[in-house]
Amino acid sequence: MRKLRFLFLISFSIFACNQQQETKTTSNELSAEEKTDSTNIKTLFNAALTQGKSYEWLKDLTQNIGGRLSGSPEAAKAVIWGEQLMKEVGLDSVWLQPVMVPHWVRGEKEIANYTTNGTQKNVPICALGFSVATPASGVLAEVIEVKSLEEAKALGTKMKGKIMFFNRPFDDTLINTFSAYGGCVDQRVAGAIICGEFGAKGVIVRSMTNSVDDYPHTGTMSYGDLPEEKYIPAAAISAKAANILSDDLKQNPNLKFYFKQSCETLPDAPSFNVVGEIKGSETPENIFVVGGHLDSWDLGEGAHDDGSGIVQSLEVAYLFKKNNIQPKNTIRIVFFMNEENGTRGAKKYAELAKLNKENHIGGLESDSGGHTPRGFSIDANTANSTLLQSWKKLLAPYGLHDLKKGGSGADISPLKAENVTLVGYKPDSQRYFDYHHTSRDTFDKVNKRELALGSASMASMVYLMDKYLYADAPVKP
Amino acid sequence: MRKLRFLFLISFSIFACNQQQETKTTSNELSAEEKTDSTNIKTLFNAALTQGKSYEWLKDLTQNIGGRLSGSPEAAKAVIWGEQLMKEVGLDSVWLQPVMVPHWVRGEKEIANYTTNGTQKNVPICALGFSVATPASGVLAEVIEVKSLEEAKALGTKMKGKIMFFNRPFDDTLINTFSAYGGCVDQRVAGAIICGEFGAKGVIVRSMTNSVDDYPHTGTMSYGDLPEEKYIPAAAISAKAANILSDDLKQNPNLKFYFKQSCETLPDAPSFNVVGEIKGSETPENIFVVGGHLDSWDLGEGAHDDGSGIVQSLEVAYLFKKNNIQPKNTIRIVFFMNEENGTRGAKKYAELAKLNKENHIGGLESDSGGHTPRGFSIDANTANSTLLQSWKKLLAPYGLHDLKKGGSGADISPLKAENVTLVGYKPDSQRYFDYHHTSRDTFDKVNKRELALGSASMASMVYLMDKYLYADAPVKP
Repeated sequence: MRKLRFLFLISFSIFACNQQQETKTTSNELSAEEKTDSTNIKTLFNAALTQGKSYEWLKDLTQNIGGRLSGSPEAAKAVIWGEQLMKEVGLDSVWLQPVMVPHWVRGEKEIANYTTNGTQKNVPICALGFSVATPASGVLAEVIEVKSLEEAKALGTKMKGKIMFFNRPFDDTLINTFSAYGGCVDQRVAGAIICGEFGAKGVIVRSMTNSVDDYPHTGTMSYGDLPEEKYIPAAAISAKAANILSDDLKQNPNLKFYFKQSCETLPDAPSFNVVGEIKGSETPENIFVVGGHLDSWDLGEGAHDDGSGIVQSLEVAYLFKKNNIQPKNTIRIVFFMNEENGTRGAKKYAELAKLNKENHIGGLESDSGGHTPRGFSIDANTANSTLLQSWKKLLAPYGLHDLKKGGSGADISPLKAENVTLVGYKPDSQRYFDYHHTSRDTFDKVNKRELALGSASMASMVYLMDKYLYADAPVKP
Repeated sequence: MRKLRFLFLISFSIFACNQQQETKTTSNELSAEEKTDSTNIKTLFNAALTQGKSYEWLKDLTQNIGGRLSGSPEAAKAVIWGEQLMKEVGLDSVWLQPVMVPHWVRGEKEIANYTTNGTQKNVPICALGFSVATPASGVLAEVIEVKSLEEAKALGTKMKGKIMFFNRPFDDTLINTFSAYGGCVDQRVAGAIICGEFGAKGVIVRSMTNSVDDYPHTGTMSYGDLPEEKYIPAAAISAKAANILSDDLKQNPNLKFYFKQSCETLPDAPSFNVVGEIKGSETPENIFVVGGHLDSWDLGEGAHDDGSGIVQSLEVAYLFKKNNIQPKNTIRIVFFMNEENGTRGAKKYAELAKLNKENHIGGLESDSGGHTPRGFSIDANTANSTLLQSWKKLLAPYGLHDLKKGGSGADISPLKAENVTLVGYKPDSQRYFDYHHTSRDTFDKVNKRELALGSASMASMVYLMDKYLYADAPVKP
């Protein structure tokens, strides 16, 4: 009996070993050059997983600085932090690019509630970025629920004096949660344009998330072409509160919703993109930009959005230096400022690139969270898209199967041109909108290995782009 | 200016929509039959994501019953829970398979500490399953650190009277964390066999994890062929404590480590596998088994290991019924008992299958956590492996890219035979060993969408296996 148990346990142990075999591209499927690439990519992953710095950098950024909304003291601290860190990593040069950014402040904690059937219900709410305040006494009005901008528009002056409630939920059947976000975010961005025009007293929008919970999700909004006197306050309420409010409105269509917020837009503030580079050894005039955005919303710590992208971008340079990989072209790391509410940093960077006649041949952005790697989206001409997709056999062993055409990212897309190859790093999207733009976007939600695998994925993509893009015919400025 | 901002924001919104396009297999790549399959698979995913029950079932199992070690009152409650739930889902028949299981109990909370340079350090520790207790006063002894069973064995009688400390860490460079686990777990399983033989006073082992934190990871161990008088207590210490102890031993090789535990193995206890099935419409004598294990370790709630596998397995049947998919063959859902310390349920199931001359043609197990889908490991003959791998184009749109040869799972592997196709569901492994066998394996670590995507992945695999495996030549008992 004892012997049997022993044998069982040994076989258990062996079973555990075999439970999932390590993914390997067998060497006979690869050309000699590809074997070299495969070895170098493995070296980048090994270094990221055993000597990577991204996790400790992210901890420092999120926990010692925290949320860093454009124009805030925290955003200013993050600029100093970023410049210092780039110097510590030993980039060949590091500099700041001045840029004026919008300076919206949230003010006091927002309040919302309503009474139905004699019970007062408090509603988790947060102002949307760029929204005006309510009057100091708040806004109290009946509510009209709609599911789309079109439905709202059709109401016309019927919405006068009401609070408009946009409540179209995420389509949970979309596997990629960014698609669900893309299908709903117009309500948040443009709701106040339509409802301000027709004299609504305010706009509340269901939070942009798959998760039916108590956390309101902030994000940017616009008043479009409205004259200032038509600006109305706009806020997000939690998805759970949206469901409850919708149910209560069915029973009590005349209930009055109250909310109060004291946010305001101050004059534009001075800030910076943080830029550093490794000079190319052969064609230093050709530049690959690698970046994420340094600013974040104020409710959380900006961990997934986009502290992860910041530390992963810098780790690309760190991994190149650590492993003595000398790029042919210049690799420029950029911590963009103000992606969340204005993309002024992105515009400034592209403007200066044009002014200085810089020759950008490609870019890689990480702004989809720090979760486990899935692939890259490619925004390039057909020849270069095909080239990048041919690297799948080198990347798939690391979980990078998705190499599809798609947008790259808000910060590098202003560099788009026929011969510029722009790529977005795409980790798994399932958990992203649990945290996005909320108080839950904190360091503890990021897994160390997933973050480091992202850095290595990005470094591998930059390694391949640097080696093979325009290898025969360097693009001239 | 306002106009510009408006235009920017609208373009932002459009950008968000395009940021990642929904993955679709374009219809002209598929045959007519594959189009039908693609549609049916989409239906299964849509149902899981919008009407799935797995998350609420898991909440109930983990939070109202909790950890359910074999032989415990909680395991007995889980059996009743499982039987009831299978009936609620409306399976054609539901029954219990009696099985005697090991009954090990942890006893009081374990204690460990040591003093170095005048400072007492408390060590997070937990007994390993099947370990004996220490004497009531505990064990106090000098420590010898080793990195392998071989290194320990070579010490021979030098280990007499010592506490042996196995400290080989996970290889973090292995992308699949199960491979790292497989490379270390021999220390936990067999350390006490070798060290008991040579008269060590106890064994402590570094926790099986990539994460250097304060949580000790329990798990099963063995005394092999040792006579009972040579049994020595065995425990796991947290990875962080292992690093600190290792450092302290370098400075102070004679420090004395103390630990105390009161665990014991009671007589075997009666328990059950919970079994339910949907009868096949054409060849009901052919059976596909789909399952996970109902027992768990006692420290946490058994959420990822393996509450997830339990609720996903049942959701396969739920999704079939919900969508009126009638399988040709019988689909049998099994909640196996005692995977963690004995696999007695698995053995009993296979034994009864043989005794009753049941014709199992395939099986699918989920016991790798409830994280985002990655694929399946296939244990089948060459023809069937090739067939399963040909379904990649249908499964890849759901993140199921990995369809590789490999072990299926501990509970269905006793059914292995030439014509039996065994499959393991394989979600992403990066976070799994953060929680595995610890107090952190709780409901809040499981994401609703990731769990439901797993159910739908499994249902899709069962749908395809039922339709295509042995479609021309049904396997006879």
